[in-house]
Amino acid sequence: MFLQKLDHIGIAVKSIEGCLDFYSGVLGLEVETLFSVTEQGIKACMLKIGNTKIELLESTTEGSPIAKYIEKRGEGIHHICFEVEDIETSLHTLERKGITLIDKTPRMGAEGKKIAFLHPKNTHGVLIELTSVF
Amino acid sequence: MFLQKLDHIGIAVKSIEGCLDFYSGVLGLEVETLFSVTEQGIKACMLKIGNTKIELLESTTEGSPIAKYIEKRGEGIHHICFEVEDIETSLHTLERKGITLIDKTPRMGAEGKKIAFLHPKNTHGVLIELTSVF
Repeated sequence: MFLQKLDHIGIAVKSIEGCLDFYSGVLGLEVETLFSVTEQGIKACMLKIGNTKIELLESTTEGSPIAKYIEKRGEGIHHICFEVEDIETSLHTLERKGITLIDKTPRMGAEGKKIAFLHPKNTHGVLIELTSVF
Repeated sequence: MFLQKLDHIGIAVKSIEGCLDFYSGVLGLEVETLFSVTEQGIKACMLKIGNTKIELLESTTEGSPIAKYIEKRGEGIHHICFEVEDIETSLHTLERKGITLIDKTPRMGAEGKKIAFLHPKNTHGVLIELTSVF
C-alpha cells in the first residue's frame, strides 16, 4: 500500500471564525494551526482528531477555488488528503495507471510538505490530495 | 473531547464494483467488509486506511438516500463519521447546544454499532454521523 494514512479532510466554509463555534466549541476539536495561502487566495485552520485532521478552508479572494466551490455547491466537504511515502513516485505510478493529475509535479504546501491533487474524474467525484514529507 | 476518532468517510458511488479498480486496485486500500443495509436500500464496502476507513456506498433501491444524493450532486463524498464514547450522552449534549439531529435516538448500524446523523444545516454543509460501541 503506498498510502500511509488519511492526512486530513478539507471542508469549504464561508468563515472559519463562524465555524469554530461548532467544530471547536461543540465538537471539542483542538485547533492545531491557522495559516494563509496567498497564491491560492485562501486561509485554513487545522483541527486535530486522533491522528488525522479537519481542515477548514475559507476564501480570501474573489474567484479563488474555494469561493467557486461554495458558489456552485455551498459549504461542505471539499477534498480528502492522503499521506504517501514518496509523492513523486506516487504521481508517476498514478499517471502510468491512467489517472488524470491536476498537479503533474508536486508543489510546496503551506505546512512545508509537498502536495499534489488528482482530478476527480477518475476518482468517482472525490477531489483527492496527496502529501508527503519528502 | 467527546469525539474519539474519525471512524470513516462515506463516498456515494454508482457501483462499488466499478470503484474498486481505483480505490483498491490503484490506491491499494484493503477491503475490510462488504454488507447490505436493506432498510436503507444500500450496500456498502469498507476499505481500511490506517486506523480509519473509506465507506463506498451504492444504492440498491430507486429513491434511496444514496440514489437521491447521486441524482442531485453526482458521485462524491457523502458524509463523515466520528466515533464517540457514548452516543446517547453525545446526542443529548448536541441537542442542548442547539444542533438539529436527524436521529434523535441512535439506531443500530450494519456493523453492530449504534449510529445517528446530525443535520447538515448546523454543521456548515457537512453530513455528520456519530457511532459508538455502547
